[in-house]
Amino acid sequence: MSDTAQATGADPTGAESTGAEATAGTRRGRGSGGGAARRAERTAVRIETAPFIRRRIPNYEILDEEGLALIEANAERVLEEIGVRFAENPDALKLWKDAGADVRGERVHLPKGLASKLCATAPREYVQRARNPERDVTVGGKSLVLAPVYGPPFVRDIEGGRRYATIEDFRNFVKLGYMSKWVHHSGGTLCEPTDVAVNKRHLDMLLAHMTLTDKPFMGSVTAPERAADSVEMCRILFGADRVGPECFMTSLININSPLVFDATMMGALEVYARAGQATIISPFIVGGAMAPVSVAGTLTQVLAEAMAGIAYSQLINPGSPVIFGAFVTSIDMNSGAPTFGTPEASKILWGAGQLARRLNLPFRSGGALCGSKLPDAQAAYESANTLQAALLGGVNFMLHACGWLEGGLVSGYEKFVLDADQLGILHSLAEGIDLSDNGQAMDAIREVGPGGHYLGCAHTQANFKDAFWRTQVLDYRPYETWAEAGSPDSMTLANARVKKLLGDYQPPALDPGVAEALQAYVDQRKASEPDAFG
Amino acid sequence: MSDTAQATGADPTGAESTGAEATAGTRRGRGSGGGAARRAERTAVRIETAPFIRRRIPNYEILDEEGLALIEANAERVLEEIGVRFAENPDALKLWKDAGADVRGERVHLPKGLASKLCATAPREYVQRARNPERDVTVGGKSLVLAPVYGPPFVRDIEGGRRYATIEDFRNFVKLGYMSKWVHHSGGTLCEPTDVAVNKRHLDMLLAHMTLTDKPFMGSVTAPERAADSVEMCRILFGADRVGPECFMTSLININSPLVFDATMMGALEVYARAGQATIISPFIVGGAMAPVSVAGTLTQVLAEAMAGIAYSQLINPGSPVIFGAFVTSIDMNSGAPTFGTPEASKILWGAGQLARRLNLPFRSGGALCGSKLPDAQAAYESANTLQAALLGGVNFMLHACGWLEGGLVSGYEKFVLDADQLGILHSLAEGIDLSDNGQAMDAIREVGPGGHYLGCAHTQANFKDAFWRTQVLDYRPYETWAEAGSPDSMTLANARVKKLLGDYQPPALDPGVAEALQAYVDQRKASEPDAFG
Repeated sequence: MSDTAQATGADPTGAESTGAEATAGTRRGRGSGGGAARRAERTAVRIETAPFIRRRIPNYEILDEEGLALIEANAERVLEEIGVRFAENPDALKLWKDAGADVRGERVHLPKGLASKLCATAPREYVQRARNPERDVTVGGKSLVLAPVYGPPFVRDIEGGRRYATIEDFRNFVKLGYMSKWVHHSGGTLCEPTDVAVNKRHLDMLLAHMTLTDKPFMGSVTAPERAADSVEMCRILFGADRVGPECFMTSLININSPLVFDATMMGALEVYARAGQATIISPFIVGGAMAPVSVAGTLTQVLAEAMAGIAYSQLINPGSPVIFGAFVTSIDMNSGAPTFGTPEASKILWGAGQLARRLNLPFRSGGALCGSKLPDAQAAYESANTLQAALLGGVNFMLHACGWLEGGLVSGYEKFVLDADQLGILHSLAEGIDLSDNGQAMDAIREVGPGGHYLGCAHTQANFKDAFWRTQVLDYRPYETWAEAGSPDSMTLANARVKKLLGDYQPPALDPGVAEALQAYVDQRKASEPDAFG
Repeated sequence: MSDTAQATGADPTGAESTGAEATAGTRRGRGSGGGAARRAERTAVRIETAPFIRRRIPNYEILDEEGLALIEANAERVLEEIGVRFAENPDALKLWKDAGADVRGERVHLPKGLASKLCATAPREYVQRARNPERDVTVGGKSLVLAPVYGPPFVRDIEGGRRYATIEDFRNFVKLGYMSKWVHHSGGTLCEPTDVAVNKRHLDMLLAHMTLTDKPFMGSVTAPERAADSVEMCRILFGADRVGPECFMTSLININSPLVFDATMMGALEVYARAGQATIISPFIVGGAMAPVSVAGTLTQVLAEAMAGIAYSQLINPGSPVIFGAFVTSIDMNSGAPTFGTPEASKILWGAGQLARRLNLPFRSGGALCGSKLPDAQAAYESANTLQAALLGGVNFMLHACGWLEGGLVSGYEKFVLDADQLGILHSLAEGIDLSDNGQAMDAIREVGPGGHYLGCAHTQANFKDAFWRTQVLDYRPYETWAEAGSPDSMTLANARVKKLLGDYQPPALDPGVAEALQAYVDQRKASEPDAFG
């Protein structure tokens, strides 16, 4: 794809931002001119991705030292006295025995201090490389990396309603993530492409992440051999010698809570850890079902499970990058449904963040989680509650940051762009308060004085462009203008934005040889075995 | 109204809670029995109001000591060098001069330290009494009192759309507040009853707050004589000797930002301060218009204005209760519209909360603020962003906690019950994490073990009823059930709840003599002058 093709094709007014100013400058620098060039400039797709968030604000610490120490001691007791089960995985049991654990059948009892000692070899933060080096992300410390929804078998938009997801939907969500300024990471299973065989869809998903975006992405975890495919395709894309020394994937390993580590997920973990690729070790908990109904009890179990899983990753390959994960929701005791945006979930997020930081580990939690079936007020309350909690709770890697609907059953097109817009708020909050002379604005207060107006003052003129976060989808029009436009609700406005972004999309350039090699790998692997469904 | 009438009339299943268990007990205690009594019990309206929030969690502190000291020093400079204007208020100017201020025309320059010295006589916290002593609220310290929307000239619901508010709407919102468990305070101008003359509507509003609910309320501030009416009606309701020694109103005094204190608002403040009634001294700021576009500059102005206003209240009557207010939003630089739920607003809220606490003053900010015209996803994102920030930011008195739409132009029926439901989340968050033996749940973790299930375990059975916050309006049904019910969005579900609450409403008992005296006062005052409009 030529540079010119990349820079043409769409109306800049609705695009995310002005990142293509540089592109336009380059074009002028090369002396291109005349009507066609000017038209091309005017219609250039301007794609900008904000750098991952570096917090300049404090984390919210809900527990004091005494509370944290209590939960840590309880987690150590769980690991020692109750133990964890590594199911159908004799190699894991041997590793644990050699490391000093008390192994009885599949049950592994970890003597006090063993798990935390093993966790200590995991890096405090790591860099995941992207195809575009400007989009590399640092995970850990004060950073926050935002990745879209993961896992739903259904999609929803206004026109099509709720329906099974296809590979076309998957590619659309890759494109939406690429076009979204505040989304740093392309994610993984943005939706399940149910029209592709279960044993082959990971290949199509990886190919989409590798070719349709230049943001970092996640690997497959549904079987060890699919993890191996993910590593192999990264070797093609990034160069075989780089995979291992450098990290190109962060993949999601769920724990089978309570306290079970199954062979499939551990098999994928083993592949990634050996290849030096990052994993998120995440208890997946619906409180009241997979953990106690109490916050402190759930935190104890989360800590025990995460420590055991992370310790295992370090047994496989000391120093391999790993994230302390916590996906925790509550259960509605009337219906049995999982609930989102609840106070219990926020408290667990905050507490788990503190526990992860005390282990010097990157932390994953949060997201625009909701139980609502529609991108309506319920969805937004629930999502905003979680997004706010996650920013203040020190989350370093946020999966499901946009697009999640109906308890994770549905990837929502409109929900994606509504959430993605809110992610801009997290960026701005994380900047903290500017206390420079310009931030203090004493000259402005003096200039305007009692009863004056700031709109025209010098300080406002100099700062207004960047002073406030700006939405790309919410409606601020006066009532009358809005009513004349048909009184659109947010869902309707979001639908228009989805269409605009997909219409404007153009893929980032990729070496044709690499693209061919990736396609050839996918074709060969697909041809090597029959389709499997379910 | 008889006790029996109070306890009959509605289906308990949809009501907020089970507060009327006591009523039922009393009835049984008096020996009432038989079929009619049992039917009455079964159909009793069960109204419960949660006690105001007492935070057991830390506040979020975005600024460090250095930043706070910088803003304090800047605010002192603003007060000394720029000064504030007390417009058309010669008595105020004399008071200021006597207190040591440098008064030039209407401009009052406060020497360094004067404002904070005067603020020191204001109480750190105070109790506002309600007609029902169980609904007294403490304002300040670790408390959070929630009051509904204030001020809109319009209302909106699904059936009627957006329309001018009437006194019937006003009474409906009083009733909704009374029926809402998580709303502690009946508020003030829940909407403007535009069908009543401007110079008389405060009488009808007060009468509604005094007779249709037993929660605390706010007084009129639109003219000093209306404030005097408010005090007089409190004397009738609570007893003349109690008003003064005790506080029965908390009323909203807006500052005319930047740095102007107009005679109308100050006149109302003077009435309330002399009568020992509480006021909220609140800069009302659209950032970029009434304050600098920067957060630190706005905080400086907010602090200067609030200190000057609070100091003035203490000049009028040292020790009179007063709240440090901050109503701050941003402006959309494209349309000029105010915006809500923005990161700038949250940062200002957090910073202002810290500044208020350093002055040992109660703090007012936040609310379910939004710019959206509908109770849709936009409204909910914006509202949730502000509610979350306000809880963590240490707000003590939250006006607009429910019902606000369209930048404060509209009181929304459906929005009211959606927000009021979310307020339950704030209660639960504020409880913090239970670290008791029961909270730790070690026995449960041991009982269930690896691969087990918590739903049936003893700890879950003992705790599930109170373990999780429960919504009264959000939808957790499975997709199929929800789709069969017509796929209702949150607005539709909220509309049904509005109807249920208004249908179930019955007024709390009031001494008939007091009710008559209040009505007579209103009638006499209305007859004493002609209607004024506009």
